[in-house]
Amino acid sequence: MLDFRPILFILGILLTTLSIAMFLPALVDAASGNADWQVFLASAGLTLFIGVSLILTMRGGDMKIGIREAFVLTTLSWLGLTVFAALPFAFAALNLSFADAFFEAMSGITTTGSTVIIGLDSAPPGILLWRALLQWLGGIGIIVMAIAVLPMLQVGGMQIFRLESSDTSEKVLPRAAQTSTAIGSIYLALTLVCALGYWLAGMPGFDAIAHAMTTIATGGFSTSDNSIGIFDNAAVDIIAIVFMIVGSLPFVLYLQAARGRPGGLLRDSQVRWFLAIVLAIMAIISASLYVSQELPLGMAIRSAAFNGVSIVTGTGYATAAFDNWGSFALIIFFIIMFIGGCAGSTTCGIKIFRFQVLYAIATIQVKRLLQPHGVFIPHYNRNPITQEIALSVLGFVFFYILVFVLLALGLSMLGLDFLTSLSGAATAISNVGPGLGPVIGPAGTFADLPDAAKWMLSAGMLLGRLELFTVLVILTPAFWRS
Amino acid sequence: MLDFRPILFILGILLTTLSIAMFLPALVDAASGNADWQVFLASAGLTLFIGVSLILTMRGGDMKIGIREAFVLTTLSWLGLTVFAALPFAFAALNLSFADAFFEAMSGITTTGSTVIIGLDSAPPGILLWRALLQWLGGIGIIVMAIAVLPMLQVGGMQIFRLESSDTSEKVLPRAAQTSTAIGSIYLALTLVCALGYWLAGMPGFDAIAHAMTTIATGGFSTSDNSIGIFDNAAVDIIAIVFMIVGSLPFVLYLQAARGRPGGLLRDSQVRWFLAIVLAIMAIISASLYVSQELPLGMAIRSAAFNGVSIVTGTGYATAAFDNWGSFALIIFFIIMFIGGCAGSTTCGIKIFRFQVLYAIATIQVKRLLQPHGVFIPHYNRNPITQEIALSVLGFVFFYILVFVLLALGLSMLGLDFLTSLSGAATAISNVGPGLGPVIGPAGTFADLPDAAKWMLSAGMLLGRLELFTVLVILTPAFWRS
Repeated sequence: MLDFRPILFILGILLTTLSIAMFLPALVDAASGNADWQVFLASAGLTLFIGVSLILTMRGGDMKIGIREAFVLTTLSWLGLTVFAALPFAFAALNLSFADAFFEAMSGITTTGSTVIIGLDSAPPGILLWRALLQWLGGIGIIVMAIAVLPMLQVGGMQIFRLESSDTSEKVLPRAAQTSTAIGSIYLALTLVCALGYWLAGMPGFDAIAHAMTTIATGGFSTSDNSIGIFDNAAVDIIAIVFMIVGSLPFVLYLQAARGRPGGLLRDSQVRWFLAIVLAIMAIISASLYVSQELPLGMAIRSAAFNGVSIVTGTGYATAAFDNWGSFALIIFFIIMFIGGCAGSTTCGIKIFRFQVLYAIATIQVKRLLQPHGVFIPHYNRNPITQEIALSVLGFVFFYILVFVLLALGLSMLGLDFLTSLSGAATAISNVGPGLGPVIGPAGTFADLPDAAKWMLSAGMLLGRLELFTVLVILTPAFWRS
Repeated sequence: MLDFRPILFILGILLTTLSIAMFLPALVDAASGNADWQVFLASAGLTLFIGVSLILTMRGGDMKIGIREAFVLTTLSWLGLTVFAALPFAFAALNLSFADAFFEAMSGITTTGSTVIIGLDSAPPGILLWRALLQWLGGIGIIVMAIAVLPMLQVGGMQIFRLESSDTSEKVLPRAAQTSTAIGSIYLALTLVCALGYWLAGMPGFDAIAHAMTTIATGGFSTSDNSIGIFDNAAVDIIAIVFMIVGSLPFVLYLQAARGRPGGLLRDSQVRWFLAIVLAIMAIISASLYVSQELPLGMAIRSAAFNGVSIVTGTGYATAAFDNWGSFALIIFFIIMFIGGCAGSTTCGIKIFRFQVLYAIATIQVKRLLQPHGVFIPHYNRNPITQEIALSVLGFVFFYILVFVLLALGLSMLGLDFLTSLSGAATAISNVGPGLGPVIGPAGTFADLPDAAKWMLSAGMLLGRLELFTVLVILTPAFWRS
């Protein structure tokens, strides 16, 4: 039997944390004289009440969390947090429908950055802060999950990142908790540095803080309908590029570097691949933009670098309607949506290490053709890739493509056009933010989509964020039989 | 050192065969008083001369064919045959450019079915017969290759179909030759039955024979710009559906059935999967067409079944502009382009058995999450899938997606739009025929594309037809070093 007590106990702790976060926008709105402060206070109160109730009623007893409990906990906590995080969106002056509020909350907490809100520039500060906070919390949440939970659950090849292969959960969890706390401090420090940078570059203080939170989280929510493009400031663009990349690297390596071992950061093959891919994308898009749009070279590079990095890292800021840069750029942007950053970062997508594993295996197949009896062992980061990890990555990519296809078909069934359906499915499952085309592209929003599409996309964001298997396994009959 | 003697010797035999086939359109054109008979005769003469010269100068000596020779032979023979097969297109009254002629020949011999010729309905019979013959020869060529060559070369998981796992090439080749001859007879018999069916259903004799050849080869060249839609005949549609499916099943199983063991055909899991997928596609497209286009149910089913089967099998006939059936149908048609039929048939695409292997591995990953220490072995057709085969299939799919993406990017770089670039790349690499959209869709042709696009698509067709690795391996430096 599944033991729900520890699951609900931890959910209680998470909801309590969320409710504390809700007091911040309440304060800001109260200070600026905006009536929304009551909504935030009421939402915080309700969330706090439910959270504390769960803690009090579920505490004590045997708190052992098995594998099945961990799967339910992961999915249920992201889902539960989204429901409560949606309350302020539903009841604030914006007056969003519940589908819209849930979509916006899911987009926030999964660090996606797709939005249904039009008129951000005149929105009250509480709502803007809440959107930024959700992404910021979601970002640290996913890092902790990638360090402490996913490797133990052996999801989609994440077992490659187990701290030690022989570790049992009893030994790992306290160490993971310690690691997570240290990484939380680094996350906070990087956010502050980023905010300071934005502020020095000329952003108003509030915008600097809000954007710093959504930059380091590779989330992409902005305080303007025109995203970071509103500032039209080269220094801001560069700071954003740097910190989007910072948010896409494995945070464990920052911790090692802070502890005097920067070697990991410099030698890690995932980091090298990611940086090489980012440089290649910048170069290709710059060239394409320079040739096709007749921009000055400097402008072409700045615009290509910013928007390219924003999409490949799954952040989702925009400084231009990059889906109007011709069909070559359109296909590039569509494809890089799937890439993402490194495992153990705040990014989503298929992630670099999986491409490395696939590439290592695929190239060996070519070698094997020439020497059918040769022994070739694929490597990742100087370690051999076991069969278990290879097949686990293969399974992940299989389901990734399957979910993408089903999502695109579902969206097209609702009457959305070819480009909107394909890019909407991609942007949701990879937690990018904007799609492509006139409806949901960088110049549009998700507001006009039918409610059914918003629910589908919300499901896609959750599936993508939780690395598919964590959710899929719960949907199998075998999970509930055993 | 690579030994080119046996390679060129066999190329000589193949060219001689091709030249003999060229005499047929020469005869037909001469009989109908069309001046093109001289072009066919001259082309046949030149091809025969080169072919016989190669046989005479390269015969004798040690004719041992190693693995590297087999790779070069495979690629070089398809490429060489295409060059000579293009001669009649280049010099006949059609007056095609060499890029167009090469594209049409490659599309024929790879059983793709994309065409650059406008005005088929008034074209001389010689050209129409030549297009049909090329697909028919390409179809039997690919079956023989799938039985005799690819399993030995261990390309993309094809080693699953080695006749016996311990077989060496010395033992396999004579048996493969025997098998191929028997399958050739079956291929011919099925073509005759199909032609008879078309004729009885009301097609003129010449059209019946030409279409029978391109149906069983799942090629898709027609004698009309309106493809099989010109006949507007339900019986013709049904016969085409049946024989497109017949062409998509493993021909080895027909041989077993003819020898009194029909069990293979009934129990083979690839056949069952393929038929299930075809039925599902028919049902989904029928429903979509019925709902969105307000057709009578019977008409919707007939049109959906015909065009769905035509695209999933990579044949490429059309009886309607199915890319105007709404974005849901558009995405369905785009996706099923990649599927293809069974290994050992005349179809191309990723093929059913690879999806079975991927599916078996992916679902086991879900099971393993619940029981991390359980032992799960994926199966194909009641046999365990070895790691070698799993990784081989993975490598194949990786390169398939990579080549598709690069091809789509290349096409978009030439200025083709999003849908044309994506569907053009897909239809080429999967050897389907028409793309999607107003330019290269079922109502268009490839005639208006720039020459560079035609060369790229020709390369895509060759790569897809030869299961990628056969070509890719030759492009590696290691191939030429050893």
